[in-house]
Amino acid sequence: MLNEVIIKGKPSDDELKARLSAARLELSKRQQLIAEHKLPVIVTFDGWGAAGKGSVLGRVIKNLDPRFFKTFTGGSVTDDEARRPFLYKHFVKIPEAGKFSFFDGSWMEESTMDYLMGDISKKTYNKRVASIKRFERQLNDNGYLVVKLFFQISKKEQSKRIKALLSDKSTEWRVSKADKWQNKHYDECAKVFDDYIESTNQFVAPWYLVDSKDKKWAELQVIERLITSIDTALKNVKVAVPIIQNTFALKKMPKLNDISLDKTISNEDYKKELSRLQKKLAKLHNELYRRRIPVVIAYEGWDAAGKGGNIKRIAAALDPRGYEVHPIASPEPHEKARHFLWRFFTRLPKDGHIAIFDRTWYGRVMVERLEGFCSENDWQRAYNEINEFEKELDDWGAVVIKFWVQIDKDTQLSRFTDRQNTPEKQWKITDEDWRNREKWDLYEDAINEMIEKTSTTFAPWHILESNDKHYARIKALKVVIAAIEERLKEA
Amino acid sequence: MLNEVIIKGKPSDDELKARLSAARLELSKRQQLIAEHKLPVIVTFDGWGAAGKGSVLGRVIKNLDPRFFKTFTGGSVTDDEARRPFLYKHFVKIPEAGKFSFFDGSWMEESTMDYLMGDISKKTYNKRVASIKRFERQLNDNGYLVVKLFFQISKKEQSKRIKALLSDKSTEWRVSKADKWQNKHYDECAKVFDDYIESTNQFVAPWYLVDSKDKKWAELQVIERLITSIDTALKNVKVAVPIIQNTFALKKMPKLNDISLDKTISNEDYKKELSRLQKKLAKLHNELYRRRIPVVIAYEGWDAAGKGGNIKRIAAALDPRGYEVHPIASPEPHEKARHFLWRFFTRLPKDGHIAIFDRTWYGRVMVERLEGFCSENDWQRAYNEINEFEKELDDWGAVVIKFWVQIDKDTQLSRFTDRQNTPEKQWKITDEDWRNREKWDLYEDAINEMIEKTSTTFAPWHILESNDKHYARIKALKVVIAAIEERLKEA
Repeated sequence: MLNEVIIKGKPSDDELKARLSAARLELSKRQQLIAEHKLPVIVTFDGWGAAGKGSVLGRVIKNLDPRFFKTFTGGSVTDDEARRPFLYKHFVKIPEAGKFSFFDGSWMEESTMDYLMGDISKKTYNKRVASIKRFERQLNDNGYLVVKLFFQISKKEQSKRIKALLSDKSTEWRVSKADKWQNKHYDECAKVFDDYIESTNQFVAPWYLVDSKDKKWAELQVIERLITSIDTALKNVKVAVPIIQNTFALKKMPKLNDISLDKTISNEDYKKELSRLQKKLAKLHNELYRRRIPVVIAYEGWDAAGKGGNIKRIAAALDPRGYEVHPIASPEPHEKARHFLWRFFTRLPKDGHIAIFDRTWYGRVMVERLEGFCSENDWQRAYNEINEFEKELDDWGAVVIKFWVQIDKDTQLSRFTDRQNTPEKQWKITDEDWRNREKWDLYEDAINEMIEKTSTTFAPWHILESNDKHYARIKALKVVIAAIEERLKEA
Repeated sequence: MLNEVIIKGKPSDDELKARLSAARLELSKRQQLIAEHKLPVIVTFDGWGAAGKGSVLGRVIKNLDPRFFKTFTGGSVTDDEARRPFLYKHFVKIPEAGKFSFFDGSWMEESTMDYLMGDISKKTYNKRVASIKRFERQLNDNGYLVVKLFFQISKKEQSKRIKALLSDKSTEWRVSKADKWQNKHYDECAKVFDDYIESTNQFVAPWYLVDSKDKKWAELQVIERLITSIDTALKNVKVAVPIIQNTFALKKMPKLNDISLDKTISNEDYKKELSRLQKKLAKLHNELYRRRIPVVIAYEGWDAAGKGGNIKRIAAALDPRGYEVHPIASPEPHEKARHFLWRFFTRLPKDGHIAIFDRTWYGRVMVERLEGFCSENDWQRAYNEINEFEKELDDWGAVVIKFWVQIDKDTQLSRFTDRQNTPEKQWKITDEDWRNREKWDLYEDAINEMIEKTSTTFAPWHILESNDKHYARIKALKVVIAAIEERLKEA
């Protein structure tokens, strides 16, 4: 495909000049429009080395107010990024509503070149392509406009440009090893690029090939494409999108109502087991660290169910250098202005580390759903989006453990009353807790739906029966230990 | 000093046990108190390798709710951190109000070991110590409690422990190269540690030596010290602190009123100069990148003075891979909960990159001062705190350029009116702009004081006369070019 691409319609020099100056002006008007309509725009510049991506990007952004865009350069992955899920480094760079993010070399360049140069296996490559397709679809579904550009030049043209750059001391450094390698293996690369473009050419984020032989002509193609894409997207702001059906294998889970809450443990057994299990977990933590396996533990549960105390017993077993607890409150403005999973991506641990979330991304299908903080379309889509997020963690090699801390309504009442009546505990109880309690039944329905739809085989829910907090703590430790041991066996 | 330290009072085993369990309980109560009083607490664990810092830290935090503290491990500096100012990696880790940050190996360990092992010169080391002293004082002055602990063991004890760790496969990895080096050069290290402790033993952040021969005894010392320190700090929450006098050389600057605003440039000259200077700046940007020199450009000015358009003309000359523009709005909750400079530290560029700030840390002595968003003590202290911040940038090797974009009151009125009457510009004008305009004279006084007190020789203010926006843009380009050329000559 790439080898045969002919983009028709390169205008005469005079026409090019006229269209370019008109297009530049139009683009700067679009900037205001996207700000007004809070449309976030992602533009990726991929293509052949020396095709002029960087310099065209430089020209395009001259028409924009630099306070409302950011540019990112691909090519090198930092140590820190290398220790996170593949998507991490890209997901954390998505723009706020009303702004642009430009990627000079995106996840396409990263993945195809890693694969071509033998840094990743075919299997890993395929996983990445699947992950990218989900990523781009989720961005679209969450209101992002994704414009993907591929800068095309022939083998001969590339070779000519590389020579020209190398012949000048001041531009020499701009030719990378990968550029030279590409030119030598042009046909092999073209095949992989073709396949990649073919398989990621989705309705939600289609590809545009840019004839890059002439810089001004390339610039015009890019700007005109941006304008058309923005105009289309602006017509569709806040449109409801189709709900993708879940395709991950699910575990069968009980309804909350059917869970027996009379499980208990004696004080003596509790102390013995706690100390035994914490020692065991401490050892496993060392092993995780050594083998660079990441762990993500997610806690959800009723108010006063005992999440805090439960987390404390897990954390107490861990080496402080290797874990972090993230209490999740309502999102701050810069978080609310992005995809709802953004603030969780930014909090993911490094490999070998453990992240414990006290409340999680499941807020989307509980509080945000019930309080109307997102649209119906948003929360209905979220089950699958969350499964895909957890799949990304699984692909990365993480152990993912999700706890629902369950109590009954009477137990909650007695704990609320106790908090209210005990001066040192009063800070733990707010009016909001009482208001939420009134919606118990609505929440129960939402939670049942959530547990049913998101208990994937790679990230199942575990119920912690917590009328007896001691029982729940011991069970949590056992679940965590079992999941880690399982994973260590596989690896 | 360290070699002779005798910490009296190690209690009998029974007493130790009793005091420890009482102290643990007290500490967990302090956690609630610091949350209630919004006291942020920083605790640093430094000392000899194998002295048991990590394991004591692990014991101490077991008494705390993991949602309200974070731990950080020193020892290795990431690529990304290595490309920022020395303080960056520490400053970005300070806690929010009401929470703890624990540093297992702090800026002390980093600096003394870098110096001892020959990674930095005596001159750089001295700069770091000065920077650390300023850092700790600023933390105290901004309401942080800083508790610094040094874990002391003898040469013999250290040697014994290293041998024990090395003899067991499961603990072998915990002995670092630096640990072995330290033991071999114990006396040399002791001298440097002594000097460091001596010179950083400030009233605002005193040192505590911890006798570390016995783990439980070490734990008790740490916890009791924490309790005492917290209790003292809680008595002093929001106390006014002395205003440190500026000690940096200042440039003489004009009052706003004395600035002549009739400077203009013809349209023809503007176009010619703009293109010539942008080309020049583009070349210099390449050179900065190659030589890894960072640049920080700060814009402040009256509403409608033309900051946005001015920034755009600078940015248009730059390679998009090498700069970023940071529009600064009012702080978000997680920013407001920290030292006011935190959100600027987190936005510093990497070396070789340019960061342009559209509004800056000077908000502290303008809008925050005039609107009462901080106390009088806060903004009065801020002049020196800001000079110290910019000194940190200067020590790092950054070019720091600060612009005040100046117009007169009539010009502002005509621009406001124009914005109001032009539909595409209406988004640029808000009621707040009109309210600020009413306070013109108060602002003018504050700005004059700011310019007078913060025009240091290493980070002077430059006035951009912007009644004629074209004139101001050309001047800005010239100032930036001159500052970079100056710096390139020195380096």
